[in-house]
Amino acid sequence: MTTRFHGVIPPVVTPRTADGAVDTASLERLTKYLLEGGVSGLFVLGSSAEVPYLTTEERDQVVRTIAGVNAGEVPLIAGANEQTTARVIDEGRRLVDLGADAIVATSQFYAISDARETDTHFRAIHAALDVPLFAYDVPVRTHFKLPLDLLTTLAHDGVIAGVKDSSGDDVSFRQLLLATRNIPDFAVFTGHEVVVDGALLGGAHGVVPGLGNVDPAGYASLYAASQRGDHAAAAREQDRLANLFNIVYAPTPGRVSPGAGGLGAFKTALMLLGIIDTNVMSAPMVKLDDTETRAIRSVLEHNGLL
Amino acid sequence: MTTRFHGVIPPVVTPRTADGAVDTASLERLTKYLLEGGVSGLFVLGSSAEVPYLTTEERDQVVRTIAGVNAGEVPLIAGANEQTTARVIDEGRRLVDLGADAIVATSQFYAISDARETDTHFRAIHAALDVPLFAYDVPVRTHFKLPLDLLTTLAHDGVIAGVKDSSGDDVSFRQLLLATRNIPDFAVFTGHEVVVDGALLGGAHGVVPGLGNVDPAGYASLYAASQRGDHAAAAREQDRLANLFNIVYAPTPGRVSPGAGGLGAFKTALMLLGIIDTNVMSAPMVKLDDTETRAIRSVLEHNGLL
Amino acid sequence: MTTRFHGVIPPVVTPRTADGAVDTASLERLTKYLLEGGVSGLFVLGSSAEVPYLTTEERDQVVRTIAGVNAGEVPLIAGANEQTTARVIDEGRRLVDLGADAIVATSQFYAISDARETDTHFRAIHAALDVPLFAYDVPVRTHFKLPLDLLTTLAHDGVIAGVKDSSGDDVSFRQLLLATRNIPDFAVFTGHEVVVDGALLGGAHGVVPGLGNVDPAGYASLYAASQRGDHAAAAREQDRLANLFNIVYAPTPGRVSPGAGGLGAFKTALMLLGIIDTNVMSAPMVKLDDTETRAIRSVLEHNGLL
Amino acid sequence: MTTRFHGVIPPVVTPRTADGAVDTASLERLTKYLLEGGVSGLFVLGSSAEVPYLTTEERDQVVRTIAGVNAGEVPLIAGANEQTTARVIDEGRRLVDLGADAIVATSQFYAISDARETDTHFRAIHAALDVPLFAYDVPVRTHFKLPLDLLTTLAHDGVIAGVKDSSGDDVSFRQLLLATRNIPDFAVFTGHEVVVDGALLGGAHGVVPGLGNVDPAGYASLYAASQRGDHAAAAREQDRLANLFNIVYAPTPGRVSPGAGGLGAFKTALMLLGIIDTNVMSAPMVKLDDTETRAIRSVLEHNGLL
Repeated sequence: MTTRFHGVIPPVVTPRTADGAVDTASLERLTKYLLEGGVSGLFVLGSSAEVPYLTTEERDQVVRTIAGVNAGEVPLIAGANEQTTARVIDEGRRLVDLGADAIVATSQFYAISDARETDTHFRAIHAALDVPLFAYDVPVRTHFKLPLDLLTTLAHDGVIAGVKDSSGDDVSFRQLLLATRNIPDFAVFTGHEVVVDGALLGGAHGVVPGLGNVDPAGYASLYAASQRGDHAAAAREQDRLANLFNIVYAPTPGRVSPGAGGLGAFKTALMLLGIIDTNVMSAPMVKLDDTETRAIRSVLEHNGLL
Repeated sequence: MTTRFHGVIPPVVTPRTADGAVDTASLERLTKYLLEGGVSGLFVLGSSAEVPYLTTEERDQVVRTIAGVNAGEVPLIAGANEQTTARVIDEGRRLVDLGADAIVATSQFYAISDARETDTHFRAIHAALDVPLFAYDVPVRTHFKLPLDLLTTLAHDGVIAGVKDSSGDDVSFRQLLLATRNIPDFAVFTGHEVVVDGALLGGAHGVVPGLGNVDPAGYASLYAASQRGDHAAAAREQDRLANLFNIVYAPTPGRVSPGAGGLGAFKTALMLLGIIDTNVMSAPMVKLDDTETRAIRSVLEHNGLL
Repeated sequence: MTTRFHGVIPPVVTPRTADGAVDTASLERLTKYLLEGGVSGLFVLGSSAEVPYLTTEERDQVVRTIAGVNAGEVPLIAGANEQTTARVIDEGRRLVDLGADAIVATSQFYAISDARETDTHFRAIHAALDVPLFAYDVPVRTHFKLPLDLLTTLAHDGVIAGVKDSSGDDVSFRQLLLATRNIPDFAVFTGHEVVVDGALLGGAHGVVPGLGNVDPAGYASLYAASQRGDHAAAAREQDRLANLFNIVYAPTPGRVSPGAGGLGAFKTALMLLGIIDTNVMSAPMVKLDDTETRAIRSVLEHNGLL
Repeated sequence: MTTRFHGVIPPVVTPRTADGAVDTASLERLTKYLLEGGVSGLFVLGSSAEVPYLTTEERDQVVRTIAGVNAGEVPLIAGANEQTTARVIDEGRRLVDLGADAIVATSQFYAISDARETDTHFRAIHAALDVPLFAYDVPVRTHFKLPLDLLTTLAHDGVIAGVKDSSGDDVSFRQLLLATRNIPDFAVFTGHEVVVDGALLGGAHGVVPGLGNVDPAGYASLYAASQRGDHAAAAREQDRLANLFNIVYAPTPGRVSPGAGGLGAFKTALMLLGIIDTNVMSAPMVKLDDTETRAIRSVLEHNGLL
């Protein structure tokens, strides 16, 4: 594995205080917990960080806090979450100034774009920034699946250094791995929690699991098993983590939005583990209530984390 | 018609110079052209303004320019185009400071939200701003249709002063008109170009047509016919405008994105009419080429505008 | 209006007995009720007839029953509801033998098709049948919107005699009206209940409203007002019918599927009006329960039908 | 592996003669080719068989032909491809009479249904048939993803004997494997071609790959490697097959529909391999042309099949 971007790179959640401010003390503890868990990198300002909900000031505060604790130990990959090219570039430059080692960008959103414009989009961002650029494929949010041939072209042209795939399309994921296998240092990450063993068997370079906030050591163990060729052990660890992932079914649909459910479960688990102080979410998302919190406690206990 | 927000309220496009800057001189001419065409209001920083592509500085420049020419003549309704509640509020406050008489906001996007959070979202924006708030229903961009019962509740609770409907769902549009008919000063606008006669027959208060940039007087005439009860005349004018709307089919799919096509056609028509200097689009959108421009010229000539 | 296919053409629902069989006695009473209500045609085996749920024998029984009562009084337009071309043709031939005066067909479904195949599809059906062919645009079921240019080409080539539009896309509806205006006897119908006044103002030739089962005379009155140019009267009648349409909100989501809800409301209303004996639905759809039935009774009473 | 339904179970394509009839001689050769390739079962009348396009007579002919060659050697799992419960039951009974050892059914389509009705749907089919019932999850065709909790409930209640997953959702696939792991003889198949190694690592019982028509021995080899715990060898074979899968990119979008493209590629490869006589498709699908055929020949040669 020659690329410095590889292994377990959790998307760090953003703790908030009871009154809704970014909770930097909790975020510092969480960052240490992840580093001690054996992660290889940190994905900063991802969807799991509630990045669309953060004001510009809050975004800066989050990057500064994580960068302060990390102090260069592992690479920081930061999400430049904006609607269109020019705004992404502005955002990306600021994040690089704050210490990001690489930038992640999605295709444009709210904008009604296409493959051709998306090609231009990534080339313009790459040209404007001095750090590696990762493409983030998250059609459930952007409503545009990054086409396989576009990603392959951008990879071979050196525009993107890798892809974070949260598309849920495991077929195109495998095909991307095959199509980029010979590009030095190109890195493909899966953003999913429960199929990491298969993704690594197929040649993936890393994993960006939201659940990695809760059990970073578990994902580090899964990754290590796969790296040493013990795929059966990786699958067993994956099964354990898949059971733990059931915390995301605790929130009540209707009461808690789809966006707030999974993230709320991760935050609630971290609160129960004593890593962060509250499970408060960015408004208008609501935090999990007592009943939902008890359900998560039960899953944690059942899986030996509590 | 008691509400001050009614009639023809075109979403003003954003002209750019050949080198891609906001072309304030062209924007001033366009604003005058619209006012002279008899519009009742101006929709500033809408999708037709390419608002997702504008940097914060460019957005301010656009509002200032239009407000300067308008000088209070008609109400300015401005779009606070941001992903989530807190960011919309920040954006809305700035636009009010720049002269907006009302704010338009969509549901959250990129965020994966639901009806309950959207209710909170609009209530928080309303509470934070001192001007009327319009809900903008544009699921083709937000990928969330504002539910009829949510809009009705927000209307009756005085949270929203009206709705700009670009949902393409004429059934829910009519039902919204019926459900809000007795709310004083509540205004429902259609954002579509070619079914304005039917919308007005059903009780709509206004229209926000992108094509209104090109032929403001035509829409003013359609609206006036409908107001005086001459629906057959309104339908004839609508048919004429529907034929003119065929300029949006000039761009070549694949070469020009869906987002750039219609807007590019409006800009190209305005350039051919001598109102603005270029048909340059915000990057990465491409402008219409010579062939496409000729097709638009032909439609304009065929419909008597050239 | 030169085409024999015009005016109010309700999609006749399929009554069932308490034990789930097709209730031919109720269907005969319903057919008479519709004819006495002043309808200009009958749409047989449409989605409102629960056609996908009917076995082949039941479909034949329905056509025979309606044809028997109608006895040639108004044209029968029958839906040949099958997945692909060859199967539609087989179905269409049988329906013509049973007395259908015209056949309605959708694009292929379950099949993953495209515009080019759909063109071939309609041409093959047209070539195989001796009666006029209508295209049924219902993307909520087929998941394929019939493209405007395809419909226009098929219309000008004499392949289709008309379109039944249930697409909910009022923009393309108006554009279809304009593009086919000069084709003799070409007929465009709206399948929606609450925007008929606007559709007729724009030039539509007919309406196929599920709610027309419940209040055929109301739609006949709306159509007549529009035909004599009294669009304001048409709009008032439309508003009344739009209020009556609120019966479709009586079913409880979750308990009753989206497909069963509206149809169940129409059947329940007809039962309360004494036209049909039960509100039983085709399995696995469930009938409306007592609470939902009371809500519908209340809407009927409030609108003067009971 | 206790269930008799496991291993490689290719969905047999339906060869046609030059004039469009079902080519039973080619189908017999293909069936022998698959059995000699080491498959463990045959999936009859699946989407790869173009089942929606086959008339009832053609469907019978296909089942009879395959059953005749197979003569009980491996289990036949047959697709009862109809829109709604009653029609699926009629279809399933006929297929069982023709020799099917198990029936596969999707959720209802064209119908607008929900989870509750789908539960009733599968229970009714199970009650009506004397053979095991498999649920086929193919939202790209049905536009309804079978919910994980519904499948789990139906599995634990003995309603379904297994699931054929073509949903493309590898997360829910893994969760289904975990949730049904302790049910004796319950079988979960992946319908995807290029992620079989990962699916088997996660505990899948079988694979139903369209590409298995072309290279049954390759999939048999992959499956055997996985069964003996040599996951790295399975991954290498998977990579080879993923490269072979590139034949599906030979068809030209626009000329060939999405539905016809992959199937046309499989048929064309089988024609080039001398297994079937033509690559004719069911109308209105078009067969691949000379250029596309050459591209497929090149992929076959490059991968050592020619």
